[in-house]
Amino acid sequence: MNVETHGAYCVATYRCYDEKADFHKKAAGIAVGLTVGSWTDLPQARKAEMEKHLGRVVRVEVHEPAAGESASERYADIQIAYPDINFSRDIPALLVTVFGKLSMDGRIKLIDLSFSEAFLSAFPGPRYGIQGVRDLLGIHDRPLLMSIFKSVIGHDLPALREQFLQQALGGVDLIKDDEILFENPLTPIERRVEACMQAAAEAQKATGQKLLYAVNLTGPTFGLIEQARKAIDAGANALLFNVLAYGFDALAELSRHPDIRVPIMAHPAMAGAFYPSPYHGIAASVLLGKLMRLAGADLVLFPSPYGSVVMPREENMAIKEALLTTDASAYALSANGQAPLAQSFPVPSAGIHPGLVPLILKDFGDQVVVNAGGGVHGHPMGAAAGGRAFRQAIAGCLAGRPLREYAADGHAELQAAIDAWGIKE
Amino acid sequence: MNVETHGAYCVATYRCYDEKADFHKKAAGIAVGLTVGSWTDLPQARKAEMEKHLGRVVRVEVHEPAAGESASERYADIQIAYPDINFSRDIPALLVTVFGKLSMDGRIKLIDLSFSEAFLSAFPGPRYGIQGVRDLLGIHDRPLLMSIFKSVIGHDLPALREQFLQQALGGVDLIKDDEILFENPLTPIERRVEACMQAAAEAQKATGQKLLYAVNLTGPTFGLIEQARKAIDAGANALLFNVLAYGFDALAELSRHPDIRVPIMAHPAMAGAFYPSPYHGIAASVLLGKLMRLAGADLVLFPSPYGSVVMPREENMAIKEALLTTDASAYALSANGQAPLAQSFPVPSAGIHPGLVPLILKDFGDQVVVNAGGGVHGHPMGAAAGGRAFRQAIAGCLAGRPLREYAADGHAELQAAIDAWGIKE
Repeated sequence: MNVETHGAYCVATYRCYDEKADFHKKAAGIAVGLTVGSWTDLPQARKAEMEKHLGRVVRVEVHEPAAGESASERYADIQIAYPDINFSRDIPALLVTVFGKLSMDGRIKLIDLSFSEAFLSAFPGPRYGIQGVRDLLGIHDRPLLMSIFKSVIGHDLPALREQFLQQALGGVDLIKDDEILFENPLTPIERRVEACMQAAAEAQKATGQKLLYAVNLTGPTFGLIEQARKAIDAGANALLFNVLAYGFDALAELSRHPDIRVPIMAHPAMAGAFYPSPYHGIAASVLLGKLMRLAGADLVLFPSPYGSVVMPREENMAIKEALLTTDASAYALSANGQAPLAQSFPVPSAGIHPGLVPLILKDFGDQVVVNAGGGVHGHPMGAAAGGRAFRQAIAGCLAGRPLREYAADGHAELQAAIDAWGIKE
Repeated sequence: MNVETHGAYCVATYRCYDEKADFHKKAAGIAVGLTVGSWTDLPQARKAEMEKHLGRVVRVEVHEPAAGESASERYADIQIAYPDINFSRDIPALLVTVFGKLSMDGRIKLIDLSFSEAFLSAFPGPRYGIQGVRDLLGIHDRPLLMSIFKSVIGHDLPALREQFLQQALGGVDLIKDDEILFENPLTPIERRVEACMQAAAEAQKATGQKLLYAVNLTGPTFGLIEQARKAIDAGANALLFNVLAYGFDALAELSRHPDIRVPIMAHPAMAGAFYPSPYHGIAASVLLGKLMRLAGADLVLFPSPYGSVVMPREENMAIKEALLTTDASAYALSANGQAPLAQSFPVPSAGIHPGLVPLILKDFGDQVVVNAGGGVHGHPMGAAAGGRAFRQAIAGCLAGRPLREYAADGHAELQAAIDAWGIKE
């Protein structure tokens, strides 16, 4: 079936392992079972009516195990097109349709998704995206730099403010809350925002630089809009959100809400419950790539391939591609030209120190947020120096200079970072 | 550490695979890293302040691979106690704390959770539970029987009503929507509820029996309460909800909402993205057991061990135990006596025919909902006969009669079912 000629199908691709299944039969079973329920038994007149609801097998690619490989490694990539009139235009409806019951049916992983043009048109996507975030910061000529609080639980406002100030003085563009900081008596959201935004203003006098503070949006689902309003009224200029703990639709509704006119940063908390198994779950490029962008995340954090919490490099590159691609056909098979969604900023995270900046820029290009925690706070000369070391590393890379040479050229903070953590190019 | 002496910790148990890790060190790293961030560097006075926020290692049980087993099968069960003052009293906060970042940290699966008494006290649990659902139906002396629509997409109201009526005439206690039926022009929720509840009333005249219809609650997250109100105003007396597509908190808020005074049935759609891998994700007993009950599901569907969509029997039994246990310590380690949460009805689903009823009752006891789709609609004498065959099977079991003998005793519908599908005892 040629779905490219239709604009009315969302297409799911599965990798399905089975030692002896007839994968073509399995594919046909999915296409019927998850749409009209039964097909061959239907009278001819009924078939004519039901045809527009019937799922279609687009492609079945069987990979027989190579010589010496175990039979359990036999798999097929199965692509099924689901008529978009079968479900409402929200992500829960799509996911329940394409991977609700099916997720429980043996060794099967959802490895790609694309959307009908009509489904896609219901999603405005990132309100700010890369361009909008850059506009807010007034920075268009270099990768951005973000830092993370070192520790937050049990700290009071003055302590948090001081941590914030030191990070801001280092010249970072964004600071994010820790994702495990919830409403608490020591640092409730509106007072935390006030204290940190004051520190941001104080730092701006020294650095001349704007800064986005992504405060953690938490609490009861049906109170999220109100909680976001509270944060924004207190001065928050960005939000951090644990998308997978609330579902993609909560993000989609937050990002399109008229009162929430600040960038939203998606945290990958719980993503490891979905993507790492080759046999089950949802591929990282779908989970942290396409669906995050579709739901309107302006920035998306994901485990970098460099640190202790790792993700294989090819999965990182697939997420990057999903967040950045401007090829419309990546999101809607039948579309062509420019993708209708703004780009989301990729934020590879964990294990980042200044000596990794050349590699990050090589892997991700300029449209990336360099994000560090320990690499800022653990700097031998303190957190502000840590930020400066990263900014120097970024400047050195953009100037095309070898990092070690650039450090020796009077960039003491970068030099100290290299002495502490080395360089990986 | 003896957490049993404290009431202030939520305790997570992980199974963690690693060929050579020092699991005790890893456990200590989790306990500190996911709470106070750092510990050994803190000055003594600060430690005294921070101690109440510090996570504790409760237990580390290392399983070295047996002779002949691969080194990759080396694992440890690690139990960490998290102070409940670190997070707000909602499930997203708990899950992000105990399995947010950690889910992405190698081969690690969340296999158990228990709650502090304070955390638990924030959850009323199932509003109806087994007792309440039985009271609504007026049936206390036998397992319940549920049936599922055969196919729903592309069907108009009269067709759906007729399907409903045939199921109801067979004497089922509950009928549920298909989880992939969303808002659509043919059968919008309020008209669907009206049509089906009329059919229920019509059937009641014939059967003398009450019936709950669980209509599928779908659409935008922040509109769920309003959508539920609309359904209830139209006469809905139960709701079906795809919990995992919206997050556990949405269920928790729906179940405690003053306007939503009908039982809620949790569908396991997407659960297969979480539970099947031994190395990643969240165990079925936590996902479809403890968390569903905590969040207030009155009935919980999960894949039966009998059909094509299967789950190993021991996982089924662990879900059952989580939904039914009255032992308080299963939910809060430090508690004793009666569990504070009402019981949720287990609904093992998929592949159920009347000949399986003896086995279901043996595995689950009387506190179970026997749930069938094909086993009702595919009955040789029609759907109403299918329902009757199940009711006969249940009656025969309760009378202590062998099914084949009971069928021969003038129960033609049961006999026809046995002829079609056999018996598994």
